[in-house]
Parts: sequence; structure tokens; C-alpha cells
Amino acid sequence: MVRGGGGAVSRRTPAQNAELALLLEVAGTPKPGNVDREREYDDLRFEHFLAGAVGARPGLALAAEGERVGRAFERAVHGMADQSAGNTQFGALLVLSPLVAAAGDGALSRAGVRQVVDATTVADAADFYRAFEHVDVAVDDPPEGMEPLDVRRGSDAVPELERRGLTLADVMADSADVDGVAAEWTAGFERVFDTAERVRDATGPVADRASRVFLELLAAEPDTFVVTRDDPETAAEVQRRARAVLDGDEDATELAEELVARDVNPGTTADLVAGALFVALERGVEV
Amino acid sequence: MVRGGGGAVSRRTPAQNAELALLLEVAGTPKPGNVDREREYDDLRFEHFLAGAVGARPGLALAAEGERVGRAFERAVHGMADQSAGNTQFGALLVLSPLVAAAGDGALSRAGVRQVVDATTVADAADFYRAFEHVDVAVDDPPEGMEPLDVRRGSDAVPELERRGLTLADVMADSADVDGVAAEWTAGFERVFDTAERVRDATGPVADRASRVFLELLAAEPDTFVVTRDDPETAAEVQRRARAVLDGDEDATELAEELVARDVNPGTTADLVAGALFVALERGVEV
Repeated sequence: MVRGGGGAVSRRTPAQNAELALLLEVAGTPKPGNVDREREYDDLRFEHFLAGAVGARPGLALAAEGERVGRAFERAVHGMADQSAGNTQFGALLVLSPLVAAAGDGALSRAGVRQVVDATTVADAADFYRAFEHVDVAVDDPPEGMEPLDVRRGSDAVPELERRGLTLADVMADSADVDGVAAEWTAGFERVFDTAERVRDATGPVADRASRVFLELLAAEPDTFVVTRDDPETAAEVQRRARAVLDGDEDATELAEELVARDVNPGTTADLVAGALFVALERGVEV
Repeated sequence: MVRGGGGAVSRRTPAQNAELALLLEVAGTPKPGNVDREREYDDLRFEHFLAGAVGARPGLALAAEGERVGRAFERAVHGMADQSAGNTQFGALLVLSPLVAAAGDGALSRAGVRQVVDATTVADAADFYRAFEHVDVAVDDPPEGMEPLDVRRGSDAVPELERRGLTLADVMADSADVDGVAAEWTAGFERVFDTAERVRDATGPVADRASRVFLELLAAEPDTFVVTRDDPETAAEVQRRARAVLDGDEDATELAEELVARDVNPGTTADLVAGALFVALERGVEV
């Protein structure tokens, strides 16, 4: 710990802070519907998220070192998938990769990450598609006419990406209305940076702050992963009940137990929390 | 995940497996008396162990790359201490450093780690003493005549180390009868390797296996950290009650609650579990 006049300053690198953000995110409890320190599924356990975070770090380090952000993301997913449960943190890595790239440039701000997004190319889009070959990710069928760009095609979709000249920013913009992570890419990570401020302004254990901001994000907007995996009605219910928890009308732990029992996972909201924790750590929040 | 005829083989490096071992160790619950996924102290929390593991990795990577083992350990402790709780995994890193060095040499066996120990020099001993400057570690007063080599003197003790020509192996041998980690260094890591076999032969979540072997180690020998921090009688009581848990005569979770409430921490046993988890991961245990 280096202590100076302005308080404690961590020596962690951006890649280390990104890995720690993944760990703190999954440690935060209760986080209704998601794996956390006290709740897990038989085939998707807390320890899979630990291994996923450890495995992702080399890819995150590439992002900080200036590697193409799509490539760094694909490498991070490849490393994350080195555990037996498959997809643990795909969405979180998609949030983190451009943030870590911006931090590596010394420009971790909304403008800085927007520059990273704007600089993406068709090659980054191809990397993004290749990342889907490492894990199964729950996605909707593509809209009419978009079948050639179904992400589940993996690298088979690359020629079509090239034909259309789509960058990774373009791909994200195409999904922004149905995917909360893509929406962040397109809107300059507004929710992530706002949430980072709330993490920083809160007090107490950082994992507890993660749980709190998770509920706040969940109450504010429908979780798009729940919309995709379940349906809009379930997402609306989850949003309403997260609001009830914040209002003191429902118990967070009971809601967590119920949603895990129903296998309803607001995963996109967790992805945003991971991004917010990273920004907060980079801005000096002390663990 | 690379899958071959012999089952899943992880691509994680030794440093990544060492970090994951630290994370799995603290995730294992119940681990009576120690911080785990469900129990923590106000000033020593689960999240401090997460940050400690993330911070330790660059030092662990040095060990794998052939850096002097004392120096790699000192760097790992320096990185581990980059969180607000101070000492989280000092002993675990002292177990892991020579194991990671042996793994880096492609010789993760009792003979291989013994070679690492035998090759230590006075410079490694000096590094070990310097590591005490990064954190407060609970230690006993040195025996009569050994005050110049009190580890709490940190680098002030280095001239005396040099005068006496003590290597890190010598320093460990001097403490082997009062410190369970030093005993492993001196006895070729017998308990660590035996425990790794039990982790490998067990089934179920790896964190649950960590909890199980923790209890088995605790029941087998008095925890030297409890002897030092409390007294031999408390260590004997903890050993006896761990045995009672294994015999089904006591409840592990109740014992965990009681020991945390009494602030009795069998930390040396946890350190050995971290080492065993590392060996098990290197030998193919799948998360």
C-alpha cells in the first residue's frame, strides 16, 4: 500500500483492477437471480466465476497494452472459458474490454472509451464473432434478413461482416435496443460511469456496494438478458420487485432465493456492475 | 478448454493456478476460524483476500519465471498487501512460492521443491526478512540469543543474516518446530503433497474439497498459528474439535461461528490448503 497525502493509492494495473472487479462483482451478495457468494447453481458455481476471472486476465492485459479491443476481448473470453461451466463472464468482459483499453491509454472517461469504440474496425467485429466459438451464450434469433450475421455462426459470419464493412461499433449499435451491454457501447457507457460514481460515494465493504448498485440498476431498467432468456414480462416483474426491495417492501435475500430457484438471471445488470466496479477501482476506491 | 483423451487440461500458467488456489482456499466454507465465503471480520473481509490474491500474482509469476524464490515471495507479499486489511495471505505465499518455482521448472514434485529449497541463498533469506516490512505478521518473540534475527526487524536483520551466512532454507529449518509452514519447507512439503492427492481423489466442487481437507489437516496436527497467537491449549482444543466434526459429533458451521466469534484463526492450516490446491490444479483437477 502506497499511502500519500491524498489517501491510499493502489499499485494495481488496469488488468488487475478489471480482474478484481469481476471477483468483487460475484462476491457481492445478495444479487437476486445471479450467482453470488451465497448462491449458486449445480452446474454454474461461485468457483467457476473465480476461475473465469483468473483466466480472463491475460486478455484484459492485452486490452490495456493497446491490442485491438476485439482481439483482447476474444482472448479474455478464451481464457475465461477455461473452466467447466462454460459462459460465466462473457458480457462482463464485453463491458470491461473497452474500459480497460481506455484506462491503458490514460483516458478512462466517457470520451476516452467512446474513442476506443469509434476506433473499432471490421477486424474487431470478426474477433467478437470468433469469441462466440468459445462458449454458448444465450441470444435471440436474429431479425429477418440478419441470419448471415447470427452471432452463433461464429467465424462463419466473418465474410458477411467484411462484405458489409461492419465494425464492432456497428455490430453493437445494431443490438443496442435489445442488449444492455451493446447499449452501453453505443451510448458512451453512461450507466457504467454513473454507477461507478455511486460505488465511490457509498461507504462500507465494496462487495456490499456492488450488491446495492446491482439492485438500483435492476430497479431502473429491465434486464435485457432476462428479456432474451425469459420474456419481457419476467424482466418487468424483476424490475418491479427490485424496486420493492429498495423501497423496503420486499426482502433482498428472499427475492434472491426465489429468482435462483426459478433460474431467472439478470446477467446484463451484473455485467454493468462489473464495469462500474472497474471504473471505481481505477478512480481510487479502496478495498 | 482444451479437451484431450486424458480429460480436460487447463491452459492456466503456474502463476494463474497459484492465484486461483488462493481464491479457492478462501472460497471454501465452512473453514472453522478462518475468513471464508460466509464468514469474515469487520477489518479482515472476504474481499481483502480477493484483492490479496490479485495483487500477489505478479510476484508468483516471478517465481515461475526463475526469479530467486525469496525475491519472488517478497514481491508477492508486496502486491498482496495492496489492500486495506494488511496481512491476508503471507503464509500461503510462503508455501506457494517454492511450489510455483518448481512448477516453473517443470518439476512439481517433492524432489523438485526440495531442490528449490536447497538452492536458496542468504539473499533469499534477506528477501524473506524484507517481506515482513510490508505487513504485520503475528510471530512469537525469538528465543534467547536470537533477538538480532527477530523477523520483525525486517531488513535491519540482514547484516546479521549475512554474518551468520544463513540461507532461507536455514531460516526455515530454525523455525520448523514452531511454524507449520517452515516445517513443510524443511520436510519436503509432505503434508501439502499428501493433501493435494486427497483433493484430487475427492469429488464435487473444488471449494468444498478445500473445506474438507482443511478439517482433516486441522484434526491431524495442532495449528501453529493458533499456538503462536493464542496458546498450545487452544490449538489442542481446535484440533480435538476438528476431529469431532469429522467424526460427526460436532457441526462444522457451528464450530466455524464459534471460532470466528472467539477470533481463533487456524491460519497455518489454511496456508497448507492453498498449497495443496495449487498442486492439485497443476495436476489436472478441473474447476
